Amino acid sequence: MLVGGFGEEALLREFRNLFTASGRRVSVGIGDDAAVLDVPAGRQAVWSTDLLVEGIHFEKPWQAPSQLGRKCLAVNLSDLAAMGSAPEFALMSIACPPETEVDYIFEIARGFADLATEEGVSVVGGDTTSSTGALVISVSVCGFVETGEAILRSGAVVGDSILVTGNLGSAAGGMRIIRDGEAEAYPELSKAFLEPQARVQAGLAAVEAGATSMTDISDGLASDLRHICEESGVGAMIEPALLPSLSQLDEASKRFGWDRESLMLTGGEDYELLFTLPGDIAGQVKEIIANRSGLPVTVIGEIMPQDFGIRLVSADGSGREMPSCGYEHFR
Amino acid sequence: MLVGGFGEEALLREFRNLFTASGRRVSVGIGDDAAVLDVPAGRQAVWSTDLLVEGIHFEKPWQAPSQLGRKCLAVNLSDLAAMGSAPEFALMSIACPPETEVDYIFEIARGFADLATEEGVSVVGGDTTSSTGALVISVSVCGFVETGEAILRSGAVVGDSILVTGNLGSAAGGMRIIRDGEAEAYPELSKAFLEPQARVQAGLAAVEAGATSMTDISDGLASDLRHICEESGVGAMIEPALLPSLSQLDEASKRFGWDRESLMLTGGEDYELLFTLPGDIAGQVKEIIANRSGLPVTVIGEIMPQDFGIRLVSADGSGREMPSCGYEHFR
Repeated sequence: MLVGGFGEEALLREFRNLFTASGRRVSVGIGDDAAVLDVPAGRQAVWSTDLLVEGIHFEKPWQAPSQLGRKCLAVNLSDLAAMGSAPEFALMSIACPPETEVDYIFEIARGFADLATEEGVSVVGGDTTSSTGALVISVSVCGFVETGEAILRSGAVVGDSILVTGNLGSAAGGMRIIRDGEAEAYPELSKAFLEPQARVQAGLAAVEAGATSMTDISDGLASDLRHICEESGVGAMIEPALLPSLSQLDEASKRFGWDRESLMLTGGEDYELLFTLPGDIAGQVKEIIANRSGLPVTVIGEIMPQDFGIRLVSADGSGREMPSCGYEHFR
Repeated sequence: MLVGGFGEEALLREFRNLFTASGRRVSVGIGDDAAVLDVPAGRQAVWSTDLLVEGIHFEKPWQAPSQLGRKCLAVNLSDLAAMGSAPEFALMSIACPPETEVDYIFEIARGFADLATEEGVSVVGGDTTSSTGALVISVSVCGFVETGEAILRSGAVVGDSILVTGNLGSAAGGMRIIRDGEAEAYPELSKAFLEPQARVQAGLAAVEAGATSMTDISDGLASDLRHICEESGVGAMIEPALLPSLSQLDEASKRFGWDRESLMLTGGEDYELLFTLPGDIAGQVKEIIANRSGLPVTVIGEIMPQDFGIRLVSADGSGREMPSCGYEHFR
C-alpha cells in the first residue's frame, strides 16, 4: 500500500497509536492542535530542531527505515546533550512522496519511537504531508536544565583542557564504506554512520563535572571547535596524535588510501561531545565522565589565547593551522 | 548570488542578525546547539509544528517571498491560538535547492521575522540545509497557558453553541483566483489565502469567555468540526444559512460557477477559530470576543448527541449529512 492511497488521516491515526505518549509531564499529546506539557519548577527549557533531507543527509538504500528513524531522533538529542540537558519531548514531521510505501514510513516512525522509549522521550506531535520530491524529516526536541546550568559554547577559558567522548572520523569512514559496498568488513564504522548515539549521559556528567563549554561534533572537529573558540573568544592547540579513532578506521584508511586525519578533523556526523574543563581537574574528572557514560573520554588539547589561533601542534613542537573546512550542505 | 555559492555558515550568520532574539524569556537564542528559555511559574508549555512544501502548500510565483515567510509562521501560531495560548518562541528550518537566490531566502526570513516581531515572538533557532528538490520550510512554535486552562478539542457538550471567527471559504476562493490570474479583482480573497492571520487575540478571549472546545479551521469546517465531535463524543447541527462569507466570495462564486457552500465547508486554509460555548451565554459572550479580537464572531450551529451525527439543517427543517471530505495532502 502506498501513502497516496492510505491517506493522511489514516497515517496520523497510526502515528497516534505508535506514539502513545504516557510521559509523566504530558498533559495533552498527539491529537489536538498542539501538545500541552508540564514544566518542572526551577528549570529552563532547552529547545532545538534538525531537518534531514533525502539525497543530502541520507539515501534510502543505505539503511533500514527503522535505522533512519532512530538517526533522525538521535541527531536532535545530540544537540540537547551538548547543552547538558536530558531530553523530554519530541515532535516528528514527515514530508513524503505519495508513491512511498506506507510500511516504509511506519518503519521510520517505529525506529523513532523505539529510541524515544529507550531515552525516556515522549513523542507529542508532528505533521505529515505530501512531498513533490525528496523525503524530508523534521524533528524538534525539548528538554530541561536547572536554571543557569546549560553549558554553552561561550565559556571556554585559556588553560582549559579540550576533551572529546568516543572516537572521531568513524561516521565519515562509515559513509565511505557503505557507499563503496564494503560495509560488512567494517561493522563499527558503518554502525557509527547509520546508528549514531546521542551522548546524553556524558552531557549530564559533563555538567556535574563543571565543564566550561560544550558542543556536539556534527560538522567535524575542526568546524565545531572553531564554534567554541569564536563564541568564547579564545584559540586552541590540538595534538593530532591524541585524537581517538577506532582501529577499523585506521585499517580502512590504510587499505583504501584515505586521509585518516582529515576524516577525523572534518568528516562530520560523529555526534560525539566536544567540551572543555579547567586544566587542573581535567585528568581526574574525565574518568568520572567516562565511567558514567561508558565511553572513552580523551584530552586532545588545550585552550589558548585568541591570537594563538586554532592550531595542530605535535609533541615535537611542529605546528600548522587547523583546516578550516567543515561540512557545508550548500557547497 | 545563489545559496549554493553563499554557503550555509554565511546564511546562518545572516539569520542570526535578522532574528536577534531580545525577548525577556530568551536566555540563549540562535548560535548555540540549542536555545535556552525561561518558563514562567504556574504555566504549561504549548508546543506545535507545521511543515510547508513547495508544490503542495505553495507555489513560488503565487506570492512574494516575504508573504510566504509570514504565512509559514502564521499557520503555526494558529495552532497555538486554537489552544488559547499566546505564542512566545519559534524555530524556523529551511531546506532549499542550491540554485535558489539568496535574496529570496532572506525575504522569506524577513517576512517571518516581521510577523514574529508584531506578535511578540522570539525566533530562537532553526536549521538550514540544501534540498535536492522542493523548497521546504519547517516551523515549530511554543507558547504558554495557565496550568489546566488550554482549550482542547474534547470539551464540547450537548447544548453548546458552535461559533466561528471571521469568514469561511475565503482562502479556498483566493487560491482559485490566484491560480486563474484573477487575483486583482478579488483582493480580499487573495489576501485571505496569501496572508492568513492567526487569531491569537480571539483565542485568548475564548479562554476567558469559557469556551468548552476549540480548534483552528485548517482543513475546512467539515473536517475540523468532525475532529471536535470525535474527540468530544458528540454530534453537531450546522445551519448553512448562518455560515459567514465575504461578499467577494459570493460574487466570485456566481461569476465562476463555484460551489460556494462547498468552498466554505471543505475549502481549507481559513485559519479561523472554531469553538463551542455553553448555549445560554453564547450570544452575550460572542460580542466580548468580537470586540477584543476585532473580528466578526458567528453562531453557526449547536452541539447535539453523538447519534445525531454531523448534519447541515436549514431553518425549514430539511437536513443532510455534512460532507466528509477535508483536504488530504496525499490524495
